Amino acid sequence: MNKIEHIGIAVKDLEKSNQLFASLFGKSHYKIEEVISEGVKTSFFKSGPNKIELLEATNPNSPIAKFIEKKGEGIHHIAFAVDDIISEIKRLKKEGFTILNETPKKGADNKLVAFLHPKTTNGVLIELCQEDNSLK
Amino acid sequence: MNKIEHIGIAVKDLEKSNQLFASLFGKSHYKIEEVISEGVKTSFFKSGPNKIELLEATNPNSPIAKFIEKKGEGIHHIAFAVDDIISEIKRLKKEGFTILNETPKKGADNKLVAFLHPKTTNGVLIELCQEDNSLK
Repeated sequence: MNKIEHIGIAVKDLEKSNQLFASLFGKSHYKIEEVISEGVKTSFFKSGPNKIELLEATNPNSPIAKFIEKKGEGIHHIAFAVDDIISEIKRLKKEGFTILNETPKKGADNKLVAFLHPKTTNGVLIELCQEDNSLK
Repeated sequence: MNKIEHIGIAVKDLEKSNQLFASLFGKSHYKIEEVISEGVKTSFFKSGPNKIELLEATNPNSPIAKFIEKKGEGIHHIAFAVDDIISEIKRLKKEGFTILNETPKKGADNKLVAFLHPKTTNGVLIELCQEDNSLK
């Protein structure tokens, strides 16, 4: 794992939170992207080599809607950049981690992603993400 | 804010979690440090330009003990690196954020730190941290 690629933050109102995080960082978000398959609208901010991804649910069945219902707004996941997501999934499975999707799926921001079950990672939802060159 | 300096994760058993995160990262923590004033024992892992800080409470009044009691183990805070913590505190106060300690205090890992109240930051506990050259 090369670096923290981004931190995902669950928010109720993306527009309001975009303003809030723009005040925090002293600069605006640089893109908005909807991931229909996940039921989320996302917004990205840069923080040096890292990103902050704000996530708003677009329907009540979205994992983000359920997260906010249960825990309120706040940090949803940490994503680590990996070079080879398939080999990382294999390695982590061997180490005893539970992979939520063993076949990587398309995430926001041109990424292939897979999640580890928080029960095996001290309550932290961890995302692996690899730049998806096939989409370029 | 230059980058995510670290992410703080509240854990119940630092020794067990050190093993868990060593399996995750494929390498061990590089230091253990106790911050007596905060009632925590910390352990640090590198992830490229970023760090992961595991936090175990050393007494029942520690903020980490209270956090785990309320929310369970998991992500506790995000720390952003800043060049000048005093001017960042001033700027953020002006922007309407609530600063938990307006006078920066000594944190782990040779840092001067200040926290923003999560009520003003979408439920996210944000730490500002500046390298404390006076301690070198």
